[in-house]
Amino acid sequence: MLHSQDIKVRFYEIDPYNHLNHSAYVQYFEVARIELLELVGYGMAELAAAGFHIVVTGIQTRFLSPAHSGDTVTVDSEVGEIKRVTAVFNQRIRRGDIILATQTVTAAFTNPEGRPTRAPDGFMEALAPYTGTELG
Amino acid sequence: MLHSQDIKVRFYEIDPYNHLNHSAYVQYFEVARIELLELVGYGMAELAAAGFHIVVTGIQTRFLSPAHSGDTVTVDSEVGEIKRVTAVFNQRIRRGDIILATQTVTAAFTNPEGRPTRAPDGFMEALAPYTGTELG
Amino acid sequence: MLHSQDIKVRFYEIDPYNHLNHSAYVQYFEVARIELLELVGYGMAELAAAGFHIVVTGIQTRFLSPAHSGDTVTVDSEVGEIKRVTAVFNQRIRRGDIILATQTVTAAFTNPEGRPTRAPDGFMEALAPYTGTELG
Amino acid sequence: MLHSQDIKVRFYEIDPYNHLNHSAYVQYFEVARIELLELVGYGMAELAAAGFHIVVTGIQTRFLSPAHSGDTVTVDSEVGEIKRVTAVFNQRIRRGDIILATQTVTAAFTNPEGRPTRAPDGFMEALAPYTGTELG
Repeated sequence: MLHSQDIKVRFYEIDPYNHLNHSAYVQYFEVARIELLELVGYGMAELAAAGFHIVVTGIQTRFLSPAHSGDTVTVDSEVGEIKRVTAVFNQRIRRGDIILATQTVTAAFTNPEGRPTRAPDGFMEALAPYTGTELG
Repeated sequence: MLHSQDIKVRFYEIDPYNHLNHSAYVQYFEVARIELLELVGYGMAELAAAGFHIVVTGIQTRFLSPAHSGDTVTVDSEVGEIKRVTAVFNQRIRRGDIILATQTVTAAFTNPEGRPTRAPDGFMEALAPYTGTELG
Repeated sequence: MLHSQDIKVRFYEIDPYNHLNHSAYVQYFEVARIELLELVGYGMAELAAAGFHIVVTGIQTRFLSPAHSGDTVTVDSEVGEIKRVTAVFNQRIRRGDIILATQTVTAAFTNPEGRPTRAPDGFMEALAPYTGTELG
Repeated sequence: MLHSQDIKVRFYEIDPYNHLNHSAYVQYFEVARIELLELVGYGMAELAAAGFHIVVTGIQTRFLSPAHSGDTVTVDSEVGEIKRVTAVFNQRIRRGDIILATQTVTAAFTNPEGRPTRAPDGFMEALAPYTGTELG
């Protein structure tokens, strides 16, 4: 199942080319992942309270078409693979049917001191409904 | 004495009007104040290590002329008044002789829990060389 | 009548104090004003197509209480005074009943070259329902 | 030859983990690329005046170690391959000898309407001194 999150493009996020700057796409992908985590009970506050950080260790992002001020875009997210320490998310941003960007993200769990650590109990199970290959 | 800090305008900070967005001016003013604090020995890390936060409680900002991508602007800062808990900074952003924005900022010391607290010992003395009325 | 806009605080907008940085409040105020303008038929794209820019010339902002990652805050906006060239907006950000920040903004119409110009026809009438003194 | 650009981490760019948010690394990489282009005579203003946009079409970024508030980091950039329409840049961010992030970026030339177009005359030659395989 895809998780879908609408985001309205903000005026100040647009660059002189009248495009959503590519770094803002990266921010939108983060916003949507965090919403998904929160939805399944592993929001950033809950994770921090349990002694976990979840940090991005890599992204591969393709920027296919520009978004503009005032556009409402949809960020689709899907869980690709979850291992002991890391999770892969496949994501895309689209405006209606037009794909604007795609991203594969690898994130890792650490303790608050930054040492890699096992994903919290139940994490994989909680995300299971969002595991898939549609965006992979 | 004025504290002066050059900042080069970044492409992604420019909005669709081809102007530095007004919120970015507010960020530049923060960057320059923090540089000044660091210069006099009260950088954010030193303050945090000593149990102090310094938070902005109010700004009055006038935006007079636009900055553009690639401009190098100068942020001038001066200390207006320091009381037990609060400090006032007067600042301006200029490109050469052209004033782009002016700001009066009030900041307050708190403990890490957010409770207002006296400025750290020596703070007023450290900033004394930058106290003035040129920008007030 | 107040215009109210909910915004969910994004993780990357939070600073090392675990607060929404004060410059992000300024961005939220802009987001809400633009929503209001769009609602009454004077969105940024419509204004630009008609040859108008609307630029911020001044803000007075008070930061009263911090917002945190994951908070949903509400930006209330009200039109204070509209003159030939300028419009004043009074705004506040709250989390439920707790006021986090207040702002008075002055904005001015310009042509695309930055020269001050009269507000577009019908602008004052369109905003009339949102004119008031509750936040003034 | 590597192009190296120092950037001081700004307080507001740090997220609640006390890390430079990963989207800010992407912004720093952009800042450094634009500096390099400007240095060799193809700054954003010059390109725009000549009818060229240069847009990012893909990034592959690895985040290896966190940067913190007040750190000065260095962005090293090198040109990987330049074709008719696209250019590849290899980049890294380091604090002294510690590599914090690496990135491969593909950028493409377009006209202002977004249609892919040949790189401007002399572009490849101008960047030749920065072509290399050290970061590839």
